[in-house]
Amino acid sequence: MKAKVMRLSECPREPEAFAEKATEFIKENVDPNEKVICALSGGTDSSVVARLFQEAIQERLYPIHIDTGFMRKIGGNEEPKLVEELFEDLDNFELIDRKEIFFDNVFGVEDAEEKRKKFRSTYVDVLNQKIEEIGASVMAQGTIKPDVLETESEIKSQNNVYTDFKIDKLVEPLAGLYKPEVRKVGKYLGLPESTYLRQPFPGPGLSVRTVGKITKKKLDIEKEANDLVERLIENYFRESYGREYLWDEESGNRIPFQYFASTLDSARRGSTEVNGYLKALGVEAKSWELENRATGVKENGEKRSRVYAHPILLEGDLETELLFYLGEEIPKRFEFSRVLYKLGEWEEGNQIVGIRGVRSNDAITAEPLNIPIDNLREFGWKILDRISVETVAYDLTPKPPGTIEYE
Amino acid sequence: MKAKVMRLSECPREPEAFAEKATEFIKENVDPNEKVICALSGGTDSSVVARLFQEAIQERLYPIHIDTGFMRKIGGNEEPKLVEELFEDLDNFELIDRKEIFFDNVFGVEDAEEKRKKFRSTYVDVLNQKIEEIGASVMAQGTIKPDVLETESEIKSQNNVYTDFKIDKLVEPLAGLYKPEVRKVGKYLGLPESTYLRQPFPGPGLSVRTVGKITKKKLDIEKEANDLVERLIENYFRESYGREYLWDEESGNRIPFQYFASTLDSARRGSTEVNGYLKALGVEAKSWELENRATGVKENGEKRSRVYAHPILLEGDLETELLFYLGEEIPKRFEFSRVLYKLGEWEEGNQIVGIRGVRSNDAITAEPLNIPIDNLREFGWKILDRISVETVAYDLTPKPPGTIEYE
Repeated sequence: MKAKVMRLSECPREPEAFAEKATEFIKENVDPNEKVICALSGGTDSSVVARLFQEAIQERLYPIHIDTGFMRKIGGNEEPKLVEELFEDLDNFELIDRKEIFFDNVFGVEDAEEKRKKFRSTYVDVLNQKIEEIGASVMAQGTIKPDVLETESEIKSQNNVYTDFKIDKLVEPLAGLYKPEVRKVGKYLGLPESTYLRQPFPGPGLSVRTVGKITKKKLDIEKEANDLVERLIENYFRESYGREYLWDEESGNRIPFQYFASTLDSARRGSTEVNGYLKALGVEAKSWELENRATGVKENGEKRSRVYAHPILLEGDLETELLFYLGEEIPKRFEFSRVLYKLGEWEEGNQIVGIRGVRSNDAITAEPLNIPIDNLREFGWKILDRISVETVAYDLTPKPPGTIEYE
Repeated sequence: MKAKVMRLSECPREPEAFAEKATEFIKENVDPNEKVICALSGGTDSSVVARLFQEAIQERLYPIHIDTGFMRKIGGNEEPKLVEELFEDLDNFELIDRKEIFFDNVFGVEDAEEKRKKFRSTYVDVLNQKIEEIGASVMAQGTIKPDVLETESEIKSQNNVYTDFKIDKLVEPLAGLYKPEVRKVGKYLGLPESTYLRQPFPGPGLSVRTVGKITKKKLDIEKEANDLVERLIENYFRESYGREYLWDEESGNRIPFQYFASTLDSARRGSTEVNGYLKALGVEAKSWELENRATGVKENGEKRSRVYAHPILLEGDLETELLFYLGEEIPKRFEFSRVLYKLGEWEEGNQIVGIRGVRSNDAITAEPLNIPIDNLREFGWKILDRISVETVAYDLTPKPPGTIEYE
């Protein structure tokens, strides 16, 4: 389908002035007879967009949250419920449960790219069905400036693009803002801090953190593990600073940038090449090549290319200094995508929980969080105590040569 | 003076083949009637060059070590003595004590650039005097490939360049090698590991680590502090890995890359701008702007420029994660050159010892060592116990936005 794209690309930086301008922009670009669909992910950008459209066109807005079954728990609550609570004051808000169809299409898939594709095509089908049901001809979308720069930098407002959705117009009021500015607008619009400072979360949700062939059982473990890891890390920050995270309002940085659990199958074999390397370094440690493959990124000069390879699991009494060195060197030197360090292990289950926490300003480069190793070991035992997995490990890989997410 | 430059730029990578080729190259480029001076710094490159010339031309080589008074202590021993022990088997080796003249020229200087210039001109004078005394017409120099690439990439062997030295020829057998290869050649030539794996040390020695107006008293403190910091960090590695450092022979990386003490004057004033920033972040900490200025580096897109500004001293109960974040953000955001974190303080002396330890592959980028904060605090108390200084702090600044050395 061809659709007109309307982007508000030149706009004031101050939240109040921006909100006013954006409301005008929406009014100008949506005709009185048009219905607008807005797919709310639960993240900052789409939540801000929904509130701006509500202000501008009220009951002609149809905000939808699709429960894909791959959303996370936040503080023990299912995210779809939280999104519902946040938007139930809107006339046409609807929470659509499509877990079954997403599960049918995604379970059993092993390859990372295929997982993303299956998820995407299901999402398009579900949303198109809803667009027809409502009779919407416009879609409100939370595209922000970095998205525009990364993908289709030549497209100007009013140009036509092909989209997967059965609509005539895409209206993107945030297309001129960077993340910190969107966060400030969200604050100004009265969204709760947990929404306007929400950490980034991938579109296909926990499916890309459940590494390898995905099943319902593995997804359930991933969901529990992710919730627990988020709470452990928030707790560590609360004990250290009295707050779950720090927000540098001026730069828009949230510390930590992102933190979550991934789960991998525990099947592995000793890695002779990495063992040889560790031996040459004079280090007493064992290394295992995991059977799953995960995504990484390689740098050759200025160019970056995607790597889809096995992670390495390290085991031994290593100090932080060397751990971070190995997290950087091993994926640079060998064909492995990332390095995990075993924090603890138990005799049941056959999954590995990987704790991933990073510092970053822009997601282009990232460093693993420097949480002291004793705290990490404690996290390990707490996870093993509550979830039936074999191993808990900490992901040591910076980006590059790793990626933040797993698939 | 114009001098011919002879560089061995295409050469075998294997130590044995390289040594053979380099020996031939030296024989070909030094005439039977020529005397060759070689200024030994005590570092890897010049030590390797001296051994190669010895092999090639024996008694026509004049290896000189100038005691500038700014060398460090290594394991409690003065470096000039160590260099003498290493090379006393050579016919013409001479240790020249020129401490007085270096001290006369450098003491009292405050500005970093001027300090480097005074040191350099003194060095040139001393060496030229020696060149005349010996009647040398050739200089053997340990230039390696990165030096060549960084400075005068167009110059080919046999071309003429202006040099400060009164010689006809500069012979540079290592000009085609990178550091790891030089280290392997050093090992092959039978140099002790402490020489072929020696950490980099700046030309003007401890003078550039004694920040601010330099005096004999301050230099003495710096020398003691540097020796102590090296031993504390080596001890930490020994306890963790059974060895003072790790050597990744394949990449040539030595972990840690560099570690030393700097000393600064303790004069300071509260920094309202950084305090405001810390408050906005919600962090309970104080910040002080030091009176001295030190070097840093700023990145604007692809370009880097030198910064000569005040360091910031942080004080408070901060966790590692935030410390490393602040070490990166403060010099990026404000006009400060680096960030130090107070580990301990005592009521005597008016110097600050800054502990600097970094990981790096190439000195172009560097990360502060992740030594656990409890170990660092212990270092702090051990230093305060032995040296009369007011404060001990840890340098948190990565490169960029900081530099590794202080001036």
